[in-house]
Amino acid sequence: MKKYCKWLVSSIIAFTVAIAFVMFFVQLEKPLTIEASEISSAISGVRTLDNFPTPKLQNPERILGPAGEIFEFSTCNRGDLGFTIANAQIPSGAGPLPHIHHYTNEWFWTPQGDLELFQSVKEYPNLNQPATDDQGGRTTVYTIATKPNQITYSPKYHVHGFVNTSSETRPLIFVWIQDETSPKYPFNDGGIREYFEDVGIPIKDLKQLPPITDEARGKFVTLAPKYGINQSNYFLKYVSSVSDQPPSALANLSNDQGLTKIIDAINAYNQGDKSVRCF
Amino acid sequence: MKKYCKWLVSSIIAFTVAIAFVMFFVQLEKPLTIEASEISSAISGVRTLDNFPTPKLQNPERILGPAGEIFEFSTCNRGDLGFTIANAQIPSGAGPLPHIHHYTNEWFWTPQGDLELFQSVKEYPNLNQPATDDQGGRTTVYTIATKPNQITYSPKYHVHGFVNTSSETRPLIFVWIQDETSPKYPFNDGGIREYFEDVGIPIKDLKQLPPITDEARGKFVTLAPKYGINQSNYFLKYVSSVSDQPPSALANLSNDQGLTKIIDAINAYNQGDKSVRCF
Repeated sequence: MKKYCKWLVSSIIAFTVAIAFVMFFVQLEKPLTIEASEISSAISGVRTLDNFPTPKLQNPERILGPAGEIFEFSTCNRGDLGFTIANAQIPSGAGPLPHIHHYTNEWFWTPQGDLELFQSVKEYPNLNQPATDDQGGRTTVYTIATKPNQITYSPKYHVHGFVNTSSETRPLIFVWIQDETSPKYPFNDGGIREYFEDVGIPIKDLKQLPPITDEARGKFVTLAPKYGINQSNYFLKYVSSVSDQPPSALANLSNDQGLTKIIDAINAYNQGDKSVRCF
Repeated sequence: MKKYCKWLVSSIIAFTVAIAFVMFFVQLEKPLTIEASEISSAISGVRTLDNFPTPKLQNPERILGPAGEIFEFSTCNRGDLGFTIANAQIPSGAGPLPHIHHYTNEWFWTPQGDLELFQSVKEYPNLNQPATDDQGGRTTVYTIATKPNQITYSPKYHVHGFVNTSSETRPLIFVWIQDETSPKYPFNDGGIREYFEDVGIPIKDLKQLPPITDEARGKFVTLAPKYGINQSNYFLKYVSSVSDQPPSALANLSNDQGLTKIIDAINAYNQGDKSVRCF
């Protein structure tokens, strides 16, 4: 019996060592499994906001985008803080092609959902090296099918964009905060409203929208770098692949400190606080 | 010594059984590894053609596409065989958004490469159920960065399209063969030339290209079903993800019998064979 007992013990030890040995290498070869488990926690962690305040302006500036988007702009400054908000209506199928911001960080608030955002993990910090094959290289973008009231953060340097995948016009609030590395633009907002004023089409009457010309569409792309933006003119120019499973590192991007400062400033402005200037 | 020997033998047996046990489950969980080995064989199997003959016509019909593509058409009939060829020039960044043919099967011959084709594995056999979220469902398309002289087959029912990813205009020869299920169209070509004649802009003088209007661009989408085509109007309408690793089943699609019939008919026509009619 004693002999069998020793055999048994040595067998169990050998079995355990062998399993540990193989499991170690399996672990090394399987980062995908780890990623998959992170994804579900990312999905369950959708960030929402019940409401997003906008500054109450008398005559907000309205601009028509290249695919019929209606943007209603407001810009606020409070000390060093500068940001621009666009309260927008996005027609079915519309939305910007993949692009990169260098001087702003952006949030998208989607009160009704239905907008499919996409964003890269890879960052492109050089304005002169956009994500093309012959420059910074194309990348994978990850889609996020937004839920009602979802707030999504998309900082500078990432390739991003969105499209309205529903058959109806959908609302979207864009928020761009000036990045600390931005050169000085007149509105202290990282140049984003200046960009739309330069390339967009002014709307005088919402009931009579102006025509969108090819010239205007072209300017959205060609003049973008002047405002710290790389703007592609076809979907696959910056994008080599698209995945609908964003890694948690991307889905969990946030900048709650920045967002809180913005919401505080808007609420203060709407309550008559003279430390905030909005226009 | 005998005792140690028995321990050793039993240890080796237990170790081996444990490794076999774990490896079995590792194998079960890793279909991706198997797929990766298939991909490389698909990539090495790029099909090329040194030349693609086109029918010698006196005044080929020329039509301007929605993104400035110049199409020079020829259609041939020989018995039951009906096909249309477009000898085309594709500007940088141009190419059709994802679409589905129901009455034609198509080849792309890329004499200089530089065109990025994309195609789905999933098939959509119902013209009234395109690949949208609320109909047939969106799908994955796989990109193929074409090499010079590559010939790629893309049959009916698959979502497909392409874009010129280079910074220069690139040549492309499209070949569409009438599918046996096609209803009767005037040119016996599955309705494809009839489609371009209906929605495209006639070119009278290559030195003075006509302007492309939004109306014309819209017709490429809205009139497509009349000619057995589902045409999307933004990249992600039919597409949920994009992969640059086509499975071999897709990369190896071919119809050499159909292609041979077409090339034989063109050569016969160019040699004066009256059994072939081209126009």
